[in-house]
Amino acid sequence: MELALLYSGGKDSSLAALLLDRFYDVRCVTGSFGLTDDWEHAERAATALGFPFERVELGREVAEEAAERMIADGYPRNGIQRIHEHTLESIAELDVDAVADGTRRDDRVPTVSRAQAQSLEDRHGVDYISPLSGFGRHAVDRLVEATFDVEQGPSEEIPKADYEGEIRALIAERHDEAAVTDVFPDHEQTYVHRRHD
Amino acid sequence: MELALLYSGGKDSSLAALLLDRFYDVRCVTGSFGLTDDWEHAERAATALGFPFERVELGREVAEEAAERMIADGYPRNGIQRIHEHTLESIAELDVDAVADGTRRDDRVPTVSRAQAQSLEDRHGVDYISPLSGFGRHAVDRLVEATFDVEQGPSEEIPKADYEGEIRALIAERHDEAAVTDVFPDHEQTYVHRRHD
Repeated sequence: MELALLYSGGKDSSLAALLLDRFYDVRCVTGSFGLTDDWEHAERAATALGFPFERVELGREVAEEAAERMIADGYPRNGIQRIHEHTLESIAELDVDAVADGTRRDDRVPTVSRAQAQSLEDRHGVDYISPLSGFGRHAVDRLVEATFDVEQGPSEEIPKADYEGEIRALIAERHDEAAVTDVFPDHEQTYVHRRHD
Repeated sequence: MELALLYSGGKDSSLAALLLDRFYDVRCVTGSFGLTDDWEHAERAATALGFPFERVELGREVAEEAAERMIADGYPRNGIQRIHEHTLESIAELDVDAVADGTRRDDRVPTVSRAQAQSLEDRHGVDYISPLSGFGRHAVDRLVEATFDVEQGPSEEIPKADYEGEIRALIAERHDEAAVTDVFPDHEQTYVHRRHD
């Protein structure tokens, strides 16, 4: 069975890929607005893990809308949620039996409610799977440590492809760097380089 | 990492075992009140799948309390929930790094809320994992069909070890068969015989 996994190159979606690999032909898919080349980080990580990769083009108007929402809010949560939903809708259009993401039990954003999951499944005729939603933060951290070589650091220094880079670029272009810092306070990110030997 | 999986021999917990097998040393564990030998069905299914098996003795007073609750309610939900929570507490006492169950996204009972999961983890120093909670009914059914030889039929004819047999026996002994039928209306169950070749 063919499955498209929303993939950023980070530890959560990398762990999700290995969990699903037991039962599905997993393709790692990264959405991109075409604003930066950040999606190439995801392609490198997917290739290092041995999974096929695909870039999916996302509607530029969704980036604009999400960026303005983040600036109005003063924090990224609702904008990130909007982009995540749009990206799930986009990959559900692919010729696959199932779509998946790396959402964990303890994540506050993005979230996909049971009703949203059922709606996505019914409208697109696919299964939606969140293989990490039954794993807490501590369990994920232990599995990641046992499985991957991970680079961790401040968000802006870590290569990744989780929309943040593109939205930062968009806000900097339309507004300024101060607006970027207002929306995205310092936080830690991870990037998977390879599996342990 | 050692993991104790609550195991009934049914399709959900069997699928959970295979998902977790990628990352954990999975032991299939079945709780028993000592009222019937139903747990032996779970042992046979676990052995057929190649997993070590363990029977854990549950407090008889919990069976009594759950049975009376079911009779008072006229349906099994709250009693089953009580037993599930008690069994999770019991296996969390084992010398393991993690405990797990086969709860699915679309299950209404038993359920383990995020707060309950966190409490179990904090009090026992284990991770609690519900590897199927990100899978809907349709996804589980497809994976089961692709993976196992399953026997399906009316609940009372299918060998299994999910507490229902023991609680039926207890209610029949303390009350009568009519009380059993009042609490447990006809429903379908599954039992895993083996993996496909």
